[in-house]
Amino acid sequence: MTGHSIALESLTSWDFASFGEVLEATGNPDMIINAGLCERFQDIATLEFIGEGARAGLSIFRSRAQSLPCRLSHVERHPLGSQAFVPMSVDPFVVVVAPDRAGKPGTPRAFLTRPGQGVNYFRNTWHGTLAPLTDNALFAVVDRIGDGNNLEEYFFAEPYLINS
Amino acid sequence: MTGHSIALESLTSWDFASFGEVLEATGNPDMIINAGLCERFQDIATLEFIGEGARAGLSIFRSRAQSLPCRLSHVERHPLGSQAFVPMSVDPFVVVVAPDRAGKPGTPRAFLTRPGQGVNYFRNTWHGTLAPLTDNALFAVVDRIGDGNNLEEYFFAEPYLINS
Repeated sequence: MTGHSIALESLTSWDFASFGEVLEATGNPDMIINAGLCERFQDIATLEFIGEGARAGLSIFRSRAQSLPCRLSHVERHPLGSQAFVPMSVDPFVVVVAPDRAGKPGTPRAFLTRPGQGVNYFRNTWHGTLAPLTDNALFAVVDRIGDGNNLEEYFFAEPYLINS
Repeated sequence: MTGHSIALESLTSWDFASFGEVLEATGNPDMIINAGLCERFQDIATLEFIGEGARAGLSIFRSRAQSLPCRLSHVERHPLGSQAFVPMSVDPFVVVVAPDRAGKPGTPRAFLTRPGQGVNYFRNTWHGTLAPLTDNALFAVVDRIGDGNNLEEYFFAEPYLINS
């Protein structure tokens, strides 16, 4: 393989703050419900769906696994909507994001989730495609349903290599 | 304990059809994405959020466990919005629903999920509160964020007993 290598980082809301939200139960809950049995962390994702008739949809993704080290040939972004990924297992997955540099992705960063962490990408945030480390991994995805071109892809001149 | 008992059923979309959707990857996917690596089951939940300024929100619930047999003292419903529960683990949980009978819940039914199953309750569907069988269970919840009274509760004269 060729290209620069990227080291996996632990996923924290601090490091992820400019890209989106880490979907996790941390800190104090906003409400205690169900007669004290359940903590509610309320409305923790910036959901944004732009364009006439656009709305939130809930989909399920079932993905084959990546194995580390893995090749990152491209990233994508969604100009019309945010995209949330909720893992339906405790298995970790790799989250790749990149800052925008004048309309193109800058140097990517790669994060490894812990059990109980999902992510929400802000609208128009460069990110890698779904990269679980276990096969047939299931994710609930909350993203935009609607007309219009909501996908922009960028292929790197040389792929990056994501190392464990 | 008192009251009638309810036997747990396996959760299937057929049996659940009048109450909401089972959130799972079954049948043929609607799209194949990510260069063939990922199946997308598209827009599988009836998300409905009523009222001016109401919108979809994503929250995290962390719940203590129930143990079977468990007591069902009441159900609730949300007149202004649907509510989806996505488990963030493969641990099963108990899903209780009841048909509406002239504004009150009829006889409840109780379902046990399999790994990879979540649920979306239609707006105004009577349902039990979140009932995982493991402690500190995490769920991503997609429901209505907005003003207005979106909770109606009904307490049974005699609690039901849910048996495994």
